Amino acid sequence: MSLVVVGSFGIDTIETPFGRAEDVVGGSAVYFSLAASLFSHVKLAGNIGSDFPQAPLQTLKKRGADLDGIQTFADQATFRWTGRYEGEMNEAETLRTELNVLVEPPQIPHTYIHSPFVFLANMGPSTQLEALKTLQGHSVFADTMNLWIDTALADLQQVLEKVDGLILNDAEARALTGETHLILAGEALLKMGPDTVIIKKGEHGAFLFTEALHFALPAYPTSQVVDPTGAGDSFAGGFLGALAEMGESTPENLRRAMAYGTVAASMTVEHFSTKGLEEATRSELDQRFQKLRDFVQFSS
Amino acid sequence: MSLVVVGSFGIDTIETPFGRAEDVVGGSAVYFSLAASLFSHVKLAGNIGSDFPQAPLQTLKKRGADLDGIQTFADQATFRWTGRYEGEMNEAETLRTELNVLVEPPQIPHTYIHSPFVFLANMGPSTQLEALKTLQGHSVFADTMNLWIDTALADLQQVLEKVDGLILNDAEARALTGETHLILAGEALLKMGPDTVIIKKGEHGAFLFTEALHFALPAYPTSQVVDPTGAGDSFAGGFLGALAEMGESTPENLRRAMAYGTVAASMTVEHFSTKGLEEATRSELDQRFQKLRDFVQFSS
Repeated sequence: MSLVVVGSFGIDTIETPFGRAEDVVGGSAVYFSLAASLFSHVKLAGNIGSDFPQAPLQTLKKRGADLDGIQTFADQATFRWTGRYEGEMNEAETLRTELNVLVEPPQIPHTYIHSPFVFLANMGPSTQLEALKTLQGHSVFADTMNLWIDTALADLQQVLEKVDGLILNDAEARALTGETHLILAGEALLKMGPDTVIIKKGEHGAFLFTEALHFALPAYPTSQVVDPTGAGDSFAGGFLGALAEMGESTPENLRRAMAYGTVAASMTVEHFSTKGLEEATRSELDQRFQKLRDFVQFSS
Repeated sequence: MSLVVVGSFGIDTIETPFGRAEDVVGGSAVYFSLAASLFSHVKLAGNIGSDFPQAPLQTLKKRGADLDGIQTFADQATFRWTGRYEGEMNEAETLRTELNVLVEPPQIPHTYIHSPFVFLANMGPSTQLEALKTLQGHSVFADTMNLWIDTALADLQQVLEKVDGLILNDAEARALTGETHLILAGEALLKMGPDTVIIKKGEHGAFLFTEALHFALPAYPTSQVVDPTGAGDSFAGGFLGALAEMGESTPENLRRAMAYGTVAASMTVEHFSTKGLEEATRSELDQRFQKLRDFVQFSS
C-alpha cells in the first residue's frame, strides 16, 4: 500500500565525537522515505531550494517513490540545520537553524489524498492540521518535538485527537504527559487520542503502546554509532514502510514493523547523513531483522 | 545447584518522589538472596549487627536458604545507608553511609566452599579477592561500583581475571572501559577476563555478552516504580538463581536467566525495601516471565 510523507528536506552540518560533516543531505522526509521506500510505495511532499542535491532524489526514484509533491523554490535556499552531539550522543545541541523554504506550507498533490498510510513528520502542529484536512488515509501517524509542546500545545492536542498514531521520543513523551515513567507516559498519550503510540529511546530502543498491546525492543546492537541524526525518522520510515507493505495493523504486524523500524535506524547511525540508508538493501534489512530477533528471543 | 552469595546486609533510609522509608531492610546480599531463593539453594555470607531484623532471615530460611555464613556482631550496628532518588530515579544520591560491621571481612563456612555458583556482591575488590581464595565454584560472578574503579582499579582488574562473570551497571561499564557505546563497553569487558558480562541499564533493561552471544531485554513493563533500591541485586539474584536451578550456562539458559533477573527486579521496584521480594512467589515470577516474553516477541 502507498505511504505519504509530509516533512522537511534539509542540508545539515553535523559534529559528533567521530567527525564533522558539512552541508550534507538531511531532513525528516528524506530519512523517512529512504527507509520506507525499501518496503513500499512512498509519496513525498515538502519544499526544497535549488541547492538541494539530486542524488538522494534519484535513489528514491529508483526505489519507486513518487516525487510529485516536492516543490522546488528556484530562488530560495533549502532548510539548513547545524547541530552537535557529545558524549553518549543521546541528544543533539542545535547550533543554528535556517528555515528558508520551510516557511512556505507544503503542497499535497491530488494523487496523494487517498493513500492509506501517512506520516506527518515533525512540523508546526498548524501545518500538520492543514495537511490533515487534505489527506484521507486510515493510518495517519505524526511526530512532534519539544518546541511545539512548549509553544503550540493547543494545536498539538488537536493533532493528537485526529491522528491514528504518534511517534515521539522519550523526552517529548515526558514533557507532553508530565509522567517520568515511560510506561505511564505511553498510557497517558493513548488517552490523548492516538490508537498507537511509539516512544523512541535512542540507544535504548523503543516502546509501542496500543490498548491491547505493550511491546518493546532494544536498539539493534551495531557497534558502529557515528551520527544519530535522522535515526528517529529512519525508525518511523522502517516502521510505517513495513506496516504499509503488510497492509493491516494487527498486533503481530505492529511487532514486526517495530523490528523493521529498529533495523532501519541502525543503518542510519552507522554513517554520517543518509549514506547508510542510500546504500542499504532490503536483504540487508531482512538479515538484521533476523539478527534482532535472535538478540531478544528466549524460550518459555 | 547451590549458590553462595557474599555481600552486605543493611538498614536503609530511602527518599524517592513516592515517599520516604526509614530504617528498612536493605543490603546487596539480602536483595540478591530473596530473589535467588525462589529458584535455588542459597547460602549467605556477611555481617550483621544486633539491630538487623529477623523477618527477612525467617523468609530466607523458609525458602531453604543456608544462613550459617551470617555473622552477628552483638555489640555493633548493621551497615547503614541513606539515599535519595529524584526525577526519573535512574541514579541514587548517597546522603550518608555508616560501614559499622562491614569493616570486618565476611567469614565463609567450610560447607560453602564447593558450591558451584557464587555471587560476590559489591564489596572492596580486596575483600572479593580474599573470598575468591576460599570459594571453588565454577560459575563465580562479581559486581562492583564506581568507587572501586576510581580507588582500587589494580585489585579490581585482578578480580576480573579470576571471575567467570561480571554484573555491573551502564555507568560503571563506561567508567571501567572508557567506551561510551555500551556494545563496545561489553566487548571490552569480556577482554578483561570474565566469560560473561551483564550490563544493567535500570529502566532500560539489560545486556548480556559472551563471546558467542549478545542478548538484550528491556525492563519488565511494570507501571508502578516506587523505589529502585536493590533492583540491580534482585536482577543478579533472579539471574544467578535461575541459572543455578538450570545448572548449565548454555546460551539458551543464559537468555532465560536474564528474563528471570528482569522479572525479579520488577518485583523489587514496585515497593520500598524488600517487601516486593518477600511477598513474591515463584508462580508470580513465572507469570511475569511469560508476560516479558510476550512483551518482546515477534515472528520472523
